[in-house]
Amino acid sequence: MADEIRALFFDVFGTLVDWRTSIAREAEATLRPLGYTIDGGAFADAWRGEYQPSMADIREGRESFCKLDVLHRRNLDRILPRFGIANVPEEVLASLNLAWHRLDAWRDTAPGLIRLKQKFLIAPVSNGNISLMVGLARRNGLPWDAILGAEIAGDYKPQPQVYLSACAAFDLPPAQCMMAAAHANDLTAAAACGLRTAFITRPDEHGPGRGGKPPAEPVDVLAISVEDLAAKLGA
Amino acid sequence: MADEIRALFFDVFGTLVDWRTSIAREAEATLRPLGYTIDGGAFADAWRGEYQPSMADIREGRESFCKLDVLHRRNLDRILPRFGIANVPEEVLASLNLAWHRLDAWRDTAPGLIRLKQKFLIAPVSNGNISLMVGLARRNGLPWDAILGAEIAGDYKPQPQVYLSACAAFDLPPAQCMMAAAHANDLTAAAACGLRTAFITRPDEHGPGRGGKPPAEPVDVLAISVEDLAAKLGA
Repeated sequence: MADEIRALFFDVFGTLVDWRTSIAREAEATLRPLGYTIDGGAFADAWRGEYQPSMADIREGRESFCKLDVLHRRNLDRILPRFGIANVPEEVLASLNLAWHRLDAWRDTAPGLIRLKQKFLIAPVSNGNISLMVGLARRNGLPWDAILGAEIAGDYKPQPQVYLSACAAFDLPPAQCMMAAAHANDLTAAAACGLRTAFITRPDEHGPGRGGKPPAEPVDVLAISVEDLAAKLGA
Repeated sequence: MADEIRALFFDVFGTLVDWRTSIAREAEATLRPLGYTIDGGAFADAWRGEYQPSMADIREGRESFCKLDVLHRRNLDRILPRFGIANVPEEVLASLNLAWHRLDAWRDTAPGLIRLKQKFLIAPVSNGNISLMVGLARRNGLPWDAILGAEIAGDYKPQPQVYLSACAAFDLPPAQCMMAAAHANDLTAAAACGLRTAFITRPDEHGPGRGGKPPAEPVDVLAISVEDLAAKLGA
């Protein structure tokens, strides 16, 4: 199977980077000087909780595409009152919103991608925008061949166009591409487009011991890290 | 000025890679076993000569966007009869068309980009498609942050949308972006969109001693190589 695969596409939030710990830390550090002592984990969960619903209007064609940075900001404004936070200066909110560009990768991510790049084309196929992906790549040393995903496709996963436009960008049929993610729905959607699938377990994505489960249908590879994926694909 | 610049965008064919020598070599090597002895330089010039006219219908909205690979193939089919070439097997033509993915960079390109990446975001803003850019990057060690350009914009340079979509992908106003190219018309178009400009002299692009001239209007930087550009921008 690995002989037929030419490209690996990666989900990013949760699969390659630990959004929860990073957002919790930045939110606490940003809001403390303003007199707010928050539970950073709860804040990160609330912010991320708005993520899926915020894309619905775009996926369903009721709103034209905008970058995830714009949705993140809208979602931030929505959750602040729940934490009793008000009157935060605009520049502080703008900076906090860019905390999503500064997430830390899981420890195995960069070494695994470096190995995989020896054998496969590699690209993020994330809902994050290009500049966000570039920020994460620079911070964590992720050696992408290209930045693909939602902004290239003009739509959000799990819409088929996002997976198919990534395959098309590399001139490859879906059967020669593999989607790797820590989330079942992402892999189910990719498989429906004809891509191969790899589930990477991230047992602590939503806090200690709170990770996603593999999809009900079989995946091509089940890995416990990006380095494990590299080993299983012979890279 | 360099303090305000955040991103550098590069033209690729001619500016970073020596398309003429590479295409001449591949065309000769591909056609010789079929019994055709051609002047590779003349063949490369003829193929490249169809490049600008082939994009006109797309730039002017009479044809929907397609990748440069498709135009390159159409242009190849157009020039073959001029060299008395016929009945070439389809797989040979398909492979020769991908010679554009295997061009060699000028010697200063990779070392210059490596230096510039320490200080600036860097991306190709070329008419070449994403897979073509990835091929050149892998072959020549070009450390792009992202692949921007025509395929992202859905149009061809010098249409304003190509420059403006690159700035937008990096969340930057045009004044914080600089276009670097060996061709006056590329820089004139970028300047009209508000970008800074750098002219890189490539005196041998079209054969020994046959390179492009700087634009009539002033450029922000005049450099003799990518390494020279890095030096002049303090990188």
